[in-house]
Amino acid sequence: MKTYLPRIALLARCLPLVALCSLGLSACRDGVDTIVAGDYVVTMDESLGVIEDGAVVVDNGEIVAVGPAKDIYRDYQSTHVIPGDGRVVMPGLINGHTHTAMTLFRGIADDTELMTWLQNTIFPLEAEFVTPEFIAVGAELACYEMISSGTTTFVDMYFYPEVIAQVVDSCGLRAILAAPMIDYPSPGFEGWQDSHAAGVAFVRQWQGKNDRITPALAPHAPYTVAPQHLQEVGDSARELKAPISIHLAETYTELEQISEQEGIPPIAHALNRLGNVRVIGAHAVFAQPDEFPLMASAQFGAIHNPTSNAKLASGIAPVTDMLAAGVAVGLGTDGAASNNDLNMFEEIKLAALIHKLRDNSPTALPAATALSLATRSGAKAIGLEDRIGQLAPGMAADLIQLSINETRSLPVHDIESHLVYTADARDLINSMVAGKLVFHNGEVLTIDEKQLRRRVAQVTESIQQALED
Amino acid sequence: MKTYLPRIALLARCLPLVALCSLGLSACRDGVDTIVAGDYVVTMDESLGVIEDGAVVVDNGEIVAVGPAKDIYRDYQSTHVIPGDGRVVMPGLINGHTHTAMTLFRGIADDTELMTWLQNTIFPLEAEFVTPEFIAVGAELACYEMISSGTTTFVDMYFYPEVIAQVVDSCGLRAILAAPMIDYPSPGFEGWQDSHAAGVAFVRQWQGKNDRITPALAPHAPYTVAPQHLQEVGDSARELKAPISIHLAETYTELEQISEQEGIPPIAHALNRLGNVRVIGAHAVFAQPDEFPLMASAQFGAIHNPTSNAKLASGIAPVTDMLAAGVAVGLGTDGAASNNDLNMFEEIKLAALIHKLRDNSPTALPAATALSLATRSGAKAIGLEDRIGQLAPGMAADLIQLSINETRSLPVHDIESHLVYTADARDLINSMVAGKLVFHNGEVLTIDEKQLRRRVAQVTESIQQALED
Repeated sequence: MKTYLPRIALLARCLPLVALCSLGLSACRDGVDTIVAGDYVVTMDESLGVIEDGAVVVDNGEIVAVGPAKDIYRDYQSTHVIPGDGRVVMPGLINGHTHTAMTLFRGIADDTELMTWLQNTIFPLEAEFVTPEFIAVGAELACYEMISSGTTTFVDMYFYPEVIAQVVDSCGLRAILAAPMIDYPSPGFEGWQDSHAAGVAFVRQWQGKNDRITPALAPHAPYTVAPQHLQEVGDSARELKAPISIHLAETYTELEQISEQEGIPPIAHALNRLGNVRVIGAHAVFAQPDEFPLMASAQFGAIHNPTSNAKLASGIAPVTDMLAAGVAVGLGTDGAASNNDLNMFEEIKLAALIHKLRDNSPTALPAATALSLATRSGAKAIGLEDRIGQLAPGMAADLIQLSINETRSLPVHDIESHLVYTADARDLINSMVAGKLVFHNGEVLTIDEKQLRRRVAQVTESIQQALED
Repeated sequence: MKTYLPRIALLARCLPLVALCSLGLSACRDGVDTIVAGDYVVTMDESLGVIEDGAVVVDNGEIVAVGPAKDIYRDYQSTHVIPGDGRVVMPGLINGHTHTAMTLFRGIADDTELMTWLQNTIFPLEAEFVTPEFIAVGAELACYEMISSGTTTFVDMYFYPEVIAQVVDSCGLRAILAAPMIDYPSPGFEGWQDSHAAGVAFVRQWQGKNDRITPALAPHAPYTVAPQHLQEVGDSARELKAPISIHLAETYTELEQISEQEGIPPIAHALNRLGNVRVIGAHAVFAQPDEFPLMASAQFGAIHNPTSNAKLASGIAPVTDMLAAGVAVGLGTDGAASNNDLNMFEEIKLAALIHKLRDNSPTALPAATALSLATRSGAKAIGLEDRIGQLAPGMAADLIQLSINETRSLPVHDIESHLVYTADARDLINSMVAGKLVFHNGEVLTIDEKQLRRRVAQVTESIQQALED
């Protein structure tokens, strides 16, 4: 040990919050950054499984060991041990599809037809309000909400991604931030050419800048981006080695339109045009069985958005069929304007429920699978399976710790079932991204809440003014 | 005013928590028990609607006035004013169908077929564990959870209702407690005759004893209670003037079986046999359109249990069709073993989402209707529409106050939409039943939490022992 203190003094100084390795063991490591314990560690790793009375060792932003607490305490020591009594540790949740700054439009014109909602409310509001300042406020509000409900990674698609990147840089979350590009005028752009060019510039600007931030390209959807433009953005993505995020097969209308125009359904059409590149396809409500083999063999992930797809009456994506066919499937909230929150615990439970109805079987999408959609499977769907989604040595230290000891949700007979069907955001105690705490005991540690509230109040007032006019 | 203190002294003593009526106004009332204010008061009353900057006046367990805060503060005074800044006041939530003590089986054998689950797990566990002590612990745990998530009234159907009644008496909730009766052996009973007799005795014992507790009779379901027994319990209910709670049309199998045996579907069959009496029918997943006129004209309410019906893959009840036909519809959680919690906020949001899918329309079951299922419409469905479900003079003072000022769910553009799609149990600040606070700032005021936890731990340990054996 690199310490000049007598061992007994070290022990006296640090107990009870220091885990001490058994003195003299050769495997004993010098102090690590953090040890996080739990009555259960739900690793989502196939071989590690669920560890009772376990602990996770975090050092330099990565997980260096996961195992039974007694082994961990024997082999590692730290001045920062987060106790595990009455708590569960699991991978941080992955929100595979959202539009962060739309938090500011939360609850505007609900319960209306999609096209009415978009054309009469959302598009005019976006045209009037979307500025870099609006994006900064809305994105920070979204990050605040995601941190408060256990999300550690998200995939975003919204205007001014360079502003969103600054927010993510500062609030400590992990994100894939995709620059929107579309054939029509949008905030800041006339159409395809300038939005495409700006997206490419954004990727160049942010690539390699922050380990937590992956810049990406977001052609909006097959019905708003011409086939040759899909090819162009595929070429750009390959050249930049950047992933693509795109809306695919969200509605039956889209399925009909693209099938008629292109002779094949939207997902196959998009993957053909984009070529061999990482594609994160949001919705996939109308993914067709004959597309599954292509979806499974490509660098493709489908992001299921059960709340948004229900709220807009789009339908239920064939998640269990896609999983059975080997397609990587993740889970997302979509924007807060069509949800109306960014709480992944709700999506996990809804996914577990809604697919039992769709498949007419109470055994469909069992708890462990529902959890995986937001963790391991979700990581694979967005191409980050080597970094996140499991608690295992070598992975990034993105994890959450939840209470399983709240009277209102006792008893806990089955931990996976508990996390899916009973736990909710109220249970969050700690959240860590890349080894740094971003949430602790009810508080978001990385955002100035007072300042955020002031800015939200200002924007809200101007939106409400506009809605009244 | 009934005070010998000079008015100026009263003012000095009580500010800022006393609302003072303008001195000298003849309409000014003597001190009332409580005034609860809110940025919004969502009354669920057709003529009062949503009141901005409103307040509710509570005295002797009843609501005596509802209106704009400035009018209320002019006309009433109280030493107990609950401030309303950043808060909304609405009727307490009504859970129309649950099995309280099943909280203790939460999460046991999820994701299994209904009959496997019942026959291999639940029935054997009930046979082994259901004792008065088990019921007392499980019911108190359920009440704790319901109080923590804004429920003020529930309809229960579980063994030893006389024990549950004692728990409700003491924890301050309002409930319709129905004694189960069934043609087969059940905990404490050999079959129909003794369970029916015990149910009648329970109603006689508890009727008129506590304003908050309505004892009732619960013939289990048409497939477990013979037609002549349904007639018998209908006669008993009429004689006792007690309501009936019963499972109806929960599964397709039941629809087929009863239709074949009786020549008419389950709800019509049950209503025919039970006769002219208040019937609370849980599930109604397979309610048939030709039954709707009977359901609308009878003293009948259908209780929709969206989570349980999804989790067990039973189906989606035709809620919008029933409402359109004039049927009273309420909302319930079912037991925690098939949900797996008793959180009505989840049911409200799920109902709003799932019926948009069922009806293939984003305008189906809009926010105001979803809220009503858990309040006004729910009260009508259980026959308590003269007492609860709306904030209006003469109604019981059953209300909840929620924060609408949490950073994670800002902004609030539409209060009804916010309550359905964004609010959750985390937002609960105060809950009141019959004028008495049962929840305040994160604490259940009417249950000894430490003692409850000790008892839950004991029962849980013995259940887990039995599951391992």
